[in-house]
Amino acid sequence: MGTTARDERRQTLPGHVYTDPAWFDAEMARVFRAMWVVVARGDEIAAPGDFLVREIAGDSLILVRGQDGRVRAFHNVCRHRGTRLCLGEGGHAAGSLQCPYHAWTYDLTGRLIGAPHMDEVEGFRRDDHPLHPVACETWGGLLFVHTGRDPAPLASQLGGLPARFAPWGLEDLRLVRRETYHVKANWKLIVQNYNECLHCPVIHPMLNRMHHYLGAENVPTTGTYCGGAMGFREGVETLSTDGRRRRAYLPGLRAAERARVDYFAIYPNLLLTLHPDYVMTVTIRPRSPLETDLVADFLFHPEEIAKPDFVFEDAVAFWDGTNREDWAISEQSQLGIASRAYTPGPYSAREAQLWEFDQWVVGKVDRSTDDIS
Amino acid sequence: MGTTARDERRQTLPGHVYTDPAWFDAEMARVFRAMWVVVARGDEIAAPGDFLVREIAGDSLILVRGQDGRVRAFHNVCRHRGTRLCLGEGGHAAGSLQCPYHAWTYDLTGRLIGAPHMDEVEGFRRDDHPLHPVACETWGGLLFVHTGRDPAPLASQLGGLPARFAPWGLEDLRLVRRETYHVKANWKLIVQNYNECLHCPVIHPMLNRMHHYLGAENVPTTGTYCGGAMGFREGVETLSTDGRRRRAYLPGLRAAERARVDYFAIYPNLLLTLHPDYVMTVTIRPRSPLETDLVADFLFHPEEIAKPDFVFEDAVAFWDGTNREDWAISEQSQLGIASRAYTPGPYSAREAQLWEFDQWVVGKVDRSTDDIS
Amino acid sequence: MGTTARDERRQTLPGHVYTDPAWFDAEMARVFRAMWVVVARGDEIAAPGDFLVREIAGDSLILVRGQDGRVRAFHNVCRHRGTRLCLGEGGHAAGSLQCPYHAWTYDLTGRLIGAPHMDEVEGFRRDDHPLHPVACETWGGLLFVHTGRDPAPLASQLGGLPARFAPWGLEDLRLVRRETYHVKANWKLIVQNYNECLHCPVIHPMLNRMHHYLGAENVPTTGTYCGGAMGFREGVETLSTDGRRRRAYLPGLRAAERARVDYFAIYPNLLLTLHPDYVMTVTIRPRSPLETDLVADFLFHPEEIAKPDFVFEDAVAFWDGTNREDWAISEQSQLGIASRAYTPGPYSAREAQLWEFDQWVVGKVDRSTDDIS
Repeated sequence: MGTTARDERRQTLPGHVYTDPAWFDAEMARVFRAMWVVVARGDEIAAPGDFLVREIAGDSLILVRGQDGRVRAFHNVCRHRGTRLCLGEGGHAAGSLQCPYHAWTYDLTGRLIGAPHMDEVEGFRRDDHPLHPVACETWGGLLFVHTGRDPAPLASQLGGLPARFAPWGLEDLRLVRRETYHVKANWKLIVQNYNECLHCPVIHPMLNRMHHYLGAENVPTTGTYCGGAMGFREGVETLSTDGRRRRAYLPGLRAAERARVDYFAIYPNLLLTLHPDYVMTVTIRPRSPLETDLVADFLFHPEEIAKPDFVFEDAVAFWDGTNREDWAISEQSQLGIASRAYTPGPYSAREAQLWEFDQWVVGKVDRSTDDIS
Repeated sequence: MGTTARDERRQTLPGHVYTDPAWFDAEMARVFRAMWVVVARGDEIAAPGDFLVREIAGDSLILVRGQDGRVRAFHNVCRHRGTRLCLGEGGHAAGSLQCPYHAWTYDLTGRLIGAPHMDEVEGFRRDDHPLHPVACETWGGLLFVHTGRDPAPLASQLGGLPARFAPWGLEDLRLVRRETYHVKANWKLIVQNYNECLHCPVIHPMLNRMHHYLGAENVPTTGTYCGGAMGFREGVETLSTDGRRRRAYLPGLRAAERARVDYFAIYPNLLLTLHPDYVMTVTIRPRSPLETDLVADFLFHPEEIAKPDFVFEDAVAFWDGTNREDWAISEQSQLGIASRAYTPGPYSAREAQLWEFDQWVVGKVDRSTDDIS
Repeated sequence: MGTTARDERRQTLPGHVYTDPAWFDAEMARVFRAMWVVVARGDEIAAPGDFLVREIAGDSLILVRGQDGRVRAFHNVCRHRGTRLCLGEGGHAAGSLQCPYHAWTYDLTGRLIGAPHMDEVEGFRRDDHPLHPVACETWGGLLFVHTGRDPAPLASQLGGLPARFAPWGLEDLRLVRRETYHVKANWKLIVQNYNECLHCPVIHPMLNRMHHYLGAENVPTTGTYCGGAMGFREGVETLSTDGRRRRAYLPGLRAAERARVDYFAIYPNLLLTLHPDYVMTVTIRPRSPLETDLVADFLFHPEEIAKPDFVFEDAVAFWDGTNREDWAISEQSQLGIASRAYTPGPYSAREAQLWEFDQWVVGKVDRSTDDIS
């Protein structure tokens, strides 16, 4: 992995890893439920008592900000008869969460504080029945959860990323626009599509006017992420419908960072795209081998947002169009790969990050195999 | 089963019994196709030749009233090439049922009486090809079928129920209104919801003004049914939108029976709710582990129906609203129980009938297990 | 097979051959992907560069007419990363087919002629990555493909059919109208329905006025086809809404052929119905055990089409109505056969071709079994 030798043995993965429900289940178990994954933004539940409900890798989770300002996550399942505790997508809880069926009540740390008529039951102790907790941490304004057992801290998974991205001040940015997409393609095809620009001249006429498609300078891929930066073509200052920049540079950026876009796929489910004047995050939520939900968030600096002439539509329109081009071709890839006639094909040198990502996933799912391509 | 000891070992069932298709298939085989189940009312096919088509536990059945006034049931499958004999939901047959494909014709007892060109086939005998019969009996105006082999009479399954409910004169009542519901919940959650009123203060503001939710007097649970009676709060005379009774008492009721509502879950698929002045039956038709169809019938006495100022809307509106509250929370239970994070939870003393029902089902499905909760 | 003895042991097939996905998969593998099947008409892609995309037995295929006038077929899968090469249903390619993702380009013989940046990859040779070819041949204006390995020529499958049907001049006829249908029935029920007219008096009041339903003269069934001819009732000259013939006889027909309709089921997926003045083909495309797509084409002679008073609606309306009657009853057959209560039933002497077809399919799927009915 990460070597520079290129030969034709570097092939795409076999078809079943994109279609087989059993393989997908293994990915959910060994990747999505064995790593920190992004589920939401901290500013979606800004005040104590704010909560939201999110589904990730088959789990419905409640994320709630406690009286102490800390966000905690729980499985959305009452400990009495299993009913969903929170219906809908979120709301505000005045100090407790109550099951709508028989009124079992939990405080915002998940402790059971009310259970009608259970005191009549011999041996029943409220402390034995807290909400099932899920590890939850924050970085760069994003809420990560880890639904596996005894997770190492988020920092150990992110490695050098927080230091690298410090200049963009992610934790200071605010959500201005969210676009959601339902794509009929395996989640890995979304990551692979993000990790190369060889398709840019064919698929993205607008984006191709902003960058030169061979202009990426990639960092060495790790077990946590892959990515790199692309400079602008002459006259372009950011990614917008016309390449013009309508907002001040993000305050922490130095000259080099003002002249490029950073593209990082942070495993397993965050695509982080950093521009000189704004940031786009795309969160990946696999639904089945054949379907993926995507959430694109557009983040801007509060000082810009406060300006009377603040605009964001140029950035959102640029990416909404570009993203839809990517989702559409990914759906065509999915269809072809699902064919009986599909056989693994050769990667070019420009697709090294894809091969590395493939090997990383395969290594997670089947640790006894170094290269199944 | 039926003991009074209560301790925390009385837990809800594991999740797979609410979600696993194989478990569901076993329930259909060992409960729904091994017992008498309600499929319709006799007064839906009042005249000789009237027939209707009903689907229960995966079988499409024809119920037809013969020239002799007796209702018979058959599988809705022609013995020639397997075509559905009766399309649609029912109708009137003038003495025979004819397959719409090649005109094989059966009399109303299921005997093959016409089979064009089959007489040319060596060894063919019409008597070898009657419609596949299904046992059918009547109680209280309800049609029960048993699709298993050599069933014992319906009376042996009903035990003491006919005697208990004789005062309500069920066989004299007539259908005035039918409401049907499609609920995304396992059929057992519908039975469990019916068997406790602990949720009444939370879920049913209207019902809770009629009864005190702890006021149930239950009979000992048997292998055939569970249930009990609830008295009215002061000023309430029946279950209607305002608690007022707008119809005469059913003629056979004594004083005690006029002052209460009887709630009986008659295994496996009839919920019988008897009021002083009318009766509601809810028939349960499981469609999959995750889906159940429910048919609520509202029955009144013919003398009341004949009165010029007869009204029924107060009763139907009360129950339609209350039923919808129950179906909605049952759907939330289904979702939570289907979660990976769900674990069995403790029953309170007020949920004894649920535990007994659970054990009954589990005992039917897996006779080698006494308690899998 | 093909004997004349008739007894009740000639029964319909067991239910699972109409419902089991594993059986269906075996049929696709051992019948549809092991024989020549009809996928399109040659005149749909008349000019060099014209192409169309068709799905058959789970494969998406490209059919393209080359500069040399020959039609070739390929799997619709790019050899790079597996993307569908051609979206949509067809079009015109100016000399090459280009993948919409990374611009890999193939000539109309399937050879890879462009692969951006692949020359940088050690050991990469374009000649190793042609489109996956599929055998394609033409008869009677129809395009047949064979997706299996090393197929024998189409002629060996068709046997004596081309000679038999030479008088109708199929290759000269032109498509005037196409009707497509989605039917919720197993593909075999469509073939079986086509192979007997015992149902005609019950199902087809209009058709029954044209033929006598017992008037078929069948040829001996072979491993390639079954079929026969039916003469007209008095005063009828062709199958149209009123039995009148509004077009000249097809030029090659002799007197006997002008007085009948030929009905041939050409295994596995072509129903060929030849009238004195026009031809209808129905192509069968199985989608699942429970679903089949059907394409009915109405073909006329160019000299008739060129006449100012040419009409075809009388023929199309007749068959559209008759076909819908057949599809509807086939759906009812499917439902009944899928019942738990279904058991194989006896065939009459008038259904000999059905039994022969059944045995042929079963013999293909399970060569160790001579008769599983």
